[in-house]
Amino acid sequence: MVSREPVAPGLGGEEEEAEQDELSRRCGDFMAPPVSGLRELRSRRQDVRSRMEMLIMETQSQVCRALAQVDRGAAFTVDRWERKEGGGGISCVLQDGNIFEKAGVNVSVVFGHLSEEAAQQMRSRGKTLKTKNGKLPFCAMGVSSVIHPKNPHVPTIHFNYRYFEIENADGTKQWWFGGGTDLTPTYLNEEDAVHFHKTLKEACDQHNPELYPKYKKWCDDYFYIKHRGERRGIGGIFFDDLDSPSKEEAFQFVQSCAKAIVPCYVPIVKKHSGDPFTPEEKLWQQLRRGRYVEFNLVYDRGTKFGLATPGSRIESILMSLPLTARWQYMHTPPEKSREAEILEVLRNPKDWVH
Amino acid sequence: MVSREPVAPGLGGEEEEAEQDELSRRCGDFMAPPVSGLRELRSRRQDVRSRMEMLIMETQSQVCRALAQVDRGAAFTVDRWERKEGGGGISCVLQDGNIFEKAGVNVSVVFGHLSEEAAQQMRSRGKTLKTKNGKLPFCAMGVSSVIHPKNPHVPTIHFNYRYFEIENADGTKQWWFGGGTDLTPTYLNEEDAVHFHKTLKEACDQHNPELYPKYKKWCDDYFYIKHRGERRGIGGIFFDDLDSPSKEEAFQFVQSCAKAIVPCYVPIVKKHSGDPFTPEEKLWQQLRRGRYVEFNLVYDRGTKFGLATPGSRIESILMSLPLTARWQYMHTPPEKSREAEILEVLRNPKDWVH
Repeated sequence: MVSREPVAPGLGGEEEEAEQDELSRRCGDFMAPPVSGLRELRSRRQDVRSRMEMLIMETQSQVCRALAQVDRGAAFTVDRWERKEGGGGISCVLQDGNIFEKAGVNVSVVFGHLSEEAAQQMRSRGKTLKTKNGKLPFCAMGVSSVIHPKNPHVPTIHFNYRYFEIENADGTKQWWFGGGTDLTPTYLNEEDAVHFHKTLKEACDQHNPELYPKYKKWCDDYFYIKHRGERRGIGGIFFDDLDSPSKEEAFQFVQSCAKAIVPCYVPIVKKHSGDPFTPEEKLWQQLRRGRYVEFNLVYDRGTKFGLATPGSRIESILMSLPLTARWQYMHTPPEKSREAEILEVLRNPKDWVH
Repeated sequence: MVSREPVAPGLGGEEEEAEQDELSRRCGDFMAPPVSGLRELRSRRQDVRSRMEMLIMETQSQVCRALAQVDRGAAFTVDRWERKEGGGGISCVLQDGNIFEKAGVNVSVVFGHLSEEAAQQMRSRGKTLKTKNGKLPFCAMGVSSVIHPKNPHVPTIHFNYRYFEIENADGTKQWWFGGGTDLTPTYLNEEDAVHFHKTLKEACDQHNPELYPKYKKWCDDYFYIKHRGERRGIGGIFFDDLDSPSKEEAFQFVQSCAKAIVPCYVPIVKKHSGDPFTPEEKLWQQLRRGRYVEFNLVYDRGTKFGLATPGSRIESILMSLPLTARWQYMHTPPEKSREAEILEVLRNPKDWVH
């Protein structure tokens, strides 16, 4: 892992001022003011917690601006919301655009106390948490997004990068990162699949060559619609509970992944957004959207966690669902069709980069 | 409770033959031969298990024939399927008809051994089950249906009547019935709501005047989309774990409920299937269909149980999902609109019959 030293705390007056200007300059590019506020971010600007908040805000802004440009004129609506129990978020949504049917990029920074139910979900993720009267002070932040384009030849992308801090009853803290980026095409395009995975691999390889193969497999395993025997898409990378080799190095890795989102996806959108398509291809896309809904509502841990967390913003959580979806009884594509071709890859994931 | 005595076993030769003819005559009206086969049903024709199988087959047939008649010409496709682990079912589906977008009526009769996971789900329903090496011999049967019409002024109906038998490690058996019928309109029509609930109340009242109020409330509580703070529809009746006052009386009650399905729903379909509607009304229907999907995939115990049971037939379980659905970010109907009117009832259930 490449490790860059964070700027040492306790700089002289001038340097500190310059750094503060830099912080407000960066905030100026965001879709909305950050949840924690500039003053608080400044006061603990060396903390990973603050740097992660800056990173997720920056990621939201970069992705939204890149997509709005591709969509030629459609704009993201920006909702800044507060959470009664602590924290809030910024939801950016582009609905029924020229290229995108529904594109949502959501940032949330929430803190407070985990409920027993939510803590239970955490525990099942391999963390042993010592509760104090059944309550745990926590902070969770992340950027998450699902982009559903209109054209069935442009794939859907999902990404999510998040950071957790939980305080044990004895005052010690646990922290970890999670995240991933994955692609869900309606039809298989091998060149796109290779480009997507290669871009992610390059981001991972900067830190450790073992990461991409491990997280590629984790992604295939995670986005599995068990009752269908199919993956949701052609994968990408996925990881959770990342708390090594150090907080700094883990953050740097997450930063590289976040920076890879635009280059791994936008070229594919540009390449196919003008592709002609038939009503049958649109119908197949709608059926695959149905599968997307099945995964998100039945299996996705983030969605389940969100729906079970009191005070969470449902509209932001379910932003991931497509504008339209379809369920047809006993739909089976003919053998050797392009529909059968993608199904085969969803049933038996392939290695796209070696 | 009114209790009719079952025909006593051990009739004389002629009477027995006449009764057997009656059994095969009844089977002649079914959509497909019953799962257990005529010979087996005959051999234990006095058992509630056999009589319940006859009832669910009859219900399927009556509902399918009534709906096909209303749809003027559209036919149900009939799939008879077997379950590797034991049993099978008959799925009847009418898709993209004149009146109905998707209408499915499914019968299943399955037996075998419950997995640990499935037994766990059972236990959480108030049953204490003693496993034997983590396995429990069981038999589960039921008829279940969801009917989604095209016209937004014709409501969606769901019903399900089921019977379980589970053998404890010591050889003793536990049995119980469950079921219900509930209505999901896109727009509120008070006259329809009253007719629907009144018909169900009459079926319940034949047995015990306490049943309707109890099961009406259970229905409002069960079909609750917690994360939305809304019920799925305007309710009906719902019950589970019914094992009193006797097996015979519980069966008779379930029979009355099953016989009420056609009279509580078909008149409403006939009344509204010619109603004109606007694109905006169709869109509101699609958004409500989205909520239907949310309930079924996130909360419905039958669906969750089915998806987690190895060897279950996914196409039959997910037959309940609408052909098409929609999720729009931050859709809020204007105050005092007809959309706001139904939302109010979904948030605060009403009593429709006194």
